Amino acid sequence: MSSRHSVLPIERRLVEHVLIRTGRIPVQIVLWNGESISVTGDEPVARVFVADRRMLWRLACHPEVSFGEGYSEGRIRVEGDLIALLESIYRRASEVSDSVVARAFSRWLERQQRNSPGGSRRNIHHHYDIRTDFYKLWLDAQLVYTCAYFPTPEGGLEEAQVAKMHHVCRKLGLQSGETVIEAGCGWGALALHMAEHYGVSVKAFNISHEQIVYARECARARGLERRVEFIEDDYRNVQGGFDAFVSVGMLEHVGLEHYSELGKVINRVLGDAGRGFLHFIGRDRERPLSAWIRHRIFPGAYPPTLRQALDILEPWGFAVLDVENLRLHYARTLEHWLDRFEASARKVSEMFTPEFVRAWRLYLAGSMVAFRTGSMQLFQIAFARRASNRIPWTRARLYAGEGEAEGTRSWIPAMS
Amino acid sequence: MSSRHSVLPIERRLVEHVLIRTGRIPVQIVLWNGESISVTGDEPVARVFVADRRMLWRLACHPEVSFGEGYSEGRIRVEGDLIALLESIYRRASEVSDSVVARAFSRWLERQQRNSPGGSRRNIHHHYDIRTDFYKLWLDAQLVYTCAYFPTPEGGLEEAQVAKMHHVCRKLGLQSGETVIEAGCGWGALALHMAEHYGVSVKAFNISHEQIVYARECARARGLERRVEFIEDDYRNVQGGFDAFVSVGMLEHVGLEHYSELGKVINRVLGDAGRGFLHFIGRDRERPLSAWIRHRIFPGAYPPTLRQALDILEPWGFAVLDVENLRLHYARTLEHWLDRFEASARKVSEMFTPEFVRAWRLYLAGSMVAFRTGSMQLFQIAFARRASNRIPWTRARLYAGEGEAEGTRSWIPAMS
Repeated sequence: MSSRHSVLPIERRLVEHVLIRTGRIPVQIVLWNGESISVTGDEPVARVFVADRRMLWRLACHPEVSFGEGYSEGRIRVEGDLIALLESIYRRASEVSDSVVARAFSRWLERQQRNSPGGSRRNIHHHYDIRTDFYKLWLDAQLVYTCAYFPTPEGGLEEAQVAKMHHVCRKLGLQSGETVIEAGCGWGALALHMAEHYGVSVKAFNISHEQIVYARECARARGLERRVEFIEDDYRNVQGGFDAFVSVGMLEHVGLEHYSELGKVINRVLGDAGRGFLHFIGRDRERPLSAWIRHRIFPGAYPPTLRQALDILEPWGFAVLDVENLRLHYARTLEHWLDRFEASARKVSEMFTPEFVRAWRLYLAGSMVAFRTGSMQLFQIAFARRASNRIPWTRARLYAGEGEAEGTRSWIPAMS
Repeated sequence: MSSRHSVLPIERRLVEHVLIRTGRIPVQIVLWNGESISVTGDEPVARVFVADRRMLWRLACHPEVSFGEGYSEGRIRVEGDLIALLESIYRRASEVSDSVVARAFSRWLERQQRNSPGGSRRNIHHHYDIRTDFYKLWLDAQLVYTCAYFPTPEGGLEEAQVAKMHHVCRKLGLQSGETVIEAGCGWGALALHMAEHYGVSVKAFNISHEQIVYARECARARGLERRVEFIEDDYRNVQGGFDAFVSVGMLEHVGLEHYSELGKVINRVLGDAGRGFLHFIGRDRERPLSAWIRHRIFPGAYPPTLRQALDILEPWGFAVLDVENLRLHYARTLEHWLDRFEASARKVSEMFTPEFVRAWRLYLAGSMVAFRTGSMQLFQIAFARRASNRIPWTRARLYAGEGEAEGTRSWIPAMS
């Protein structure tokens, strides 16, 4: 289809219809013949160029996925403020219902991307087994690919990732000599941090081959290979007994239908004084993750509500001790990642393709906006066995000297 | 039936059966003829005297309620450590299933004690409209009848209740000039505290007539009657718009079937930057409150799991910011209450009856043990509208100087 084709009246109305359905976002749509359309009197935050007729019809039938695909392919171009554009879309998204096509595609994806042991392996491979060199371009030095913790909003990313790891260890109340099981360990930063700063020994599971290989190298380089064992296997195969269970950024990949299996694993490996920690992207209400993100970025991913996540713990006699929502910290983390990513865009383009750069730009910017607008939440849950009194008296120790390694100072002995 | 009757072999076996069913608790049962029975080799923590045959059969058919009734009536007497006895029962309770009689009675109570507007009034009247003089004997000076917050376990009750009120206000991030709605305000301590120390104006609802009368007197005495309005009405009738919603110790009286009504009320009164706070007795898993407690102490009460409590918030676009479990603080609070209660036992007996003293002793001791053993949990939930960025950056401000009134110092402006 040629871009010189003139725009039909029905197509003009179609654009207006889509703009109105998505909540009258302040944008100017520029069609292939140069004609521009807007449905709001507000100053547009961006101009969106639609390259041809086919793209327009795809957008009309299936806006979200088509925008992602078109933007990546370069058939949709955004001039102006991409982030402001995404923000105005996200702020209105709750008022918009999905089209029939969108719902059907979403369900199809779900069936294709189930998180069975084999499916999980494929899903995880898709995202985490692309070259570690690529992630090195824009993550922190330790490759922590989850929400950081910024004691103040102005802090740097490197310090914030270290602060996050301390925050997690303090919430777990790790004591020297204890044993920890980690489910989904990424490139191993937290496991190594726990062993190095809190004197625990760790078994860390991950099904991403690339990440495990890298993590083992780090353990050797830091002389921690005797205290941290990295195991290339599924969380469902975790065996043994441990003092603490920790999982940061894995729950999003588990899938609702496997929560009872995860709960069973946690119950199996923790003793009577067992305690644990879950850190995950969540929602304030139940709905599937963006279909484009599942299609191109995170196959099989689902961010649960807090209520859904509690299905993992309540059947097994675990009591929640602490929940913290770090949504704005993830927005800030993603700002840092996006800045670094943009600074390396040329390298990424050479490493992969310009399409890849655009897809990942959209994913990072969209995620940042999702956390800023509350479309996504970030929950940390600390829990323990219902009857265990080996629990912290207050949370003050979490805030007593942000830089300290010891997290156990005000950990009090069990009540009589 | 005479207590001189001899014990039949079947009755002996019945006692053994009950003791085994309740998890072989280390207790010695002494029957009306002086015969004593025990099923464990352990040193008994207490001797339990059963006065007559009828009591024994009631205990066998319906142990929990009959123990409560018999203990109150004086037909069951405990010699030794009542608290250790209750603790050993509670620690084993999860392994014990209820009898047919117990289940039927529990369901009957539920039907009798529904929390409709009229039912709520009856249920609340039963507990809270007994003489305020009675509560003055063993609560703190401000009559705060909910879990206190002890910055250190050794602190006193008076300071801990003040610390709790500051803790709540800081979690809410109250700012001078704001408006607050309180649902279930007890004798008014928190409403008055918020107005006095945080400069907000408060509308506080309660259906206990005695409590409202007392709270109004306090407001006048402290010169706060223009900033705190105490309203004798049901939470379902709350109208108007407020910056913050707070409810401390009311949710236990709402009843699961009314959570959607409560959610609707919170949604109706809070604006786009609205935030709120729920403090309640909860559970780690779903099950009814002790039937004896519902029968004699708290008609219609139900402590929800955290998951169940989230049914109030998730349908309305609220995101949880913070959950804290203060179970051990409630155990400590109840230790203080029980000590003070025992010190005033003679006065209480004169005010009411010896039966009343024993029933309340059992209720306070049983509650203390329930929190110590994790049978009960105490949850504080802070929440806000999903998309509101007027939320605290970290929780550090909660721990910066326990005695300060200003909770807003590190409350940061919304992110760009």
